[in-house]
Amino acid sequence: MTEKPLTLGAIIFPGFEMLDLFGPLEMFSLLGPEKVRIHMVAEHKGPVITAMGVDIENGPKVLAEYDFSDAPQLDVLLIPGGFGTQPQLENASMLSFLAERAKQAQITASVCTGSALLAKAGVLDGHRATSNKQLFALAVAQSDKVDWIEQARWVDDGPVVTSSGVSAGTDMSLAVIQRLFGEEDALSAVTSAEYTWHRDADSDPFHSELNSLAGLVGLE
Amino acid sequence: MTEKPLTLGAIIFPGFEMLDLFGPLEMFSLLGPEKVRIHMVAEHKGPVITAMGVDIENGPKVLAEYDFSDAPQLDVLLIPGGFGTQPQLENASMLSFLAERAKQAQITASVCTGSALLAKAGVLDGHRATSNKQLFALAVAQSDKVDWIEQARWVDDGPVVTSSGVSAGTDMSLAVIQRLFGEEDALSAVTSAEYTWHRDADSDPFHSELNSLAGLVGLE
Repeated sequence: MTEKPLTLGAIIFPGFEMLDLFGPLEMFSLLGPEKVRIHMVAEHKGPVITAMGVDIENGPKVLAEYDFSDAPQLDVLLIPGGFGTQPQLENASMLSFLAERAKQAQITASVCTGSALLAKAGVLDGHRATSNKQLFALAVAQSDKVDWIEQARWVDDGPVVTSSGVSAGTDMSLAVIQRLFGEEDALSAVTSAEYTWHRDADSDPFHSELNSLAGLVGLE
Repeated sequence: MTEKPLTLGAIIFPGFEMLDLFGPLEMFSLLGPEKVRIHMVAEHKGPVITAMGVDIENGPKVLAEYDFSDAPQLDVLLIPGGFGTQPQLENASMLSFLAERAKQAQITASVCTGSALLAKAGVLDGHRATSNKQLFALAVAQSDKVDWIEQARWVDDGPVVTSSGVSAGTDMSLAVIQRLFGEEDALSAVTSAEYTWHRDADSDPFHSELNSLAGLVGLE
């Protein structure tokens, strides 16, 4: 722990999955602003629309206060997934921002298909990583330099920590909080949020769904 | 189920707890825009700040697209809690909006200390209801016309459905989805979100925390 608050950058894009982001942010938020500052960063400042399942045009909106040109120093990067991930896989600005900022960050963490973006940006090269189970093939298709782990709630590989789909990100975020701030803070967040933490990174109740929706992203 | 999408109004305010809102919204979002439309409503349009624990001035922001004067017809109301609840207990505009719209809604649902707002607005009169465990006394102090249930993950009392703290709202939202759209849709959302649904409304792992933080809101 440092005396300055940790800076957490939530890297968002149109059609991101809301719980991928706000499950982890909830747990970090409970540490309070003395310990962590949350910055929402997108390619363009302003409203960013969330996904409604496969639809990425009708969800509620959140606000990005920084863009790629003026985002502050970020100790932790958090990248959600969602059906808006696919267009971002072709967005050079997003990929170069992720590649550059991951080098400077203490931890780069992704939820769900967010790991596909990190893989495409080269951030996961030489690392073990996981992704959403129903769309696992989307992540795997982005890089053969990643050791993809099919059965995991999340994978902690030091500077990169990747989780399985949506809710798995919340469990992962608590493991990251435990690493950065200690177990007491993680358990305090769990109690405040009345959350049942699934603490075993290797226990994956949704492994049986592997690639069940791969057809939706053109990968079967 | 009707042919028109259900309209869900998320009633937000400065310092609301982010997961109180986005856990339930995630589950509704997975139904897709053909079945549900989500509208974010606040007293004033524009950015609305979320809570960082007890701090309500440094959290990330979400966007309210409607205010109390132009919110559309809403079939379901969803009211989060958080440390921003207390100032709203003295906000006549908020209380009258809740009272008026609850009469027109099919279901009024709250998460965490959101039930304190509903109680103060009279929406829970004659009903059974629950609230956040660590701050239970805050809800109870708002009305003696409510049958407050201390031990419950959530309480479904027909037109009003109230949950315990933060994560309990996600479990509650799935029960509401099951009632409105059927079990298949609820279970499909659970699988897509890789979520372990706590389906027993009466099982409350956090009952032992009853009023452990009541001092923080001046109630001990």
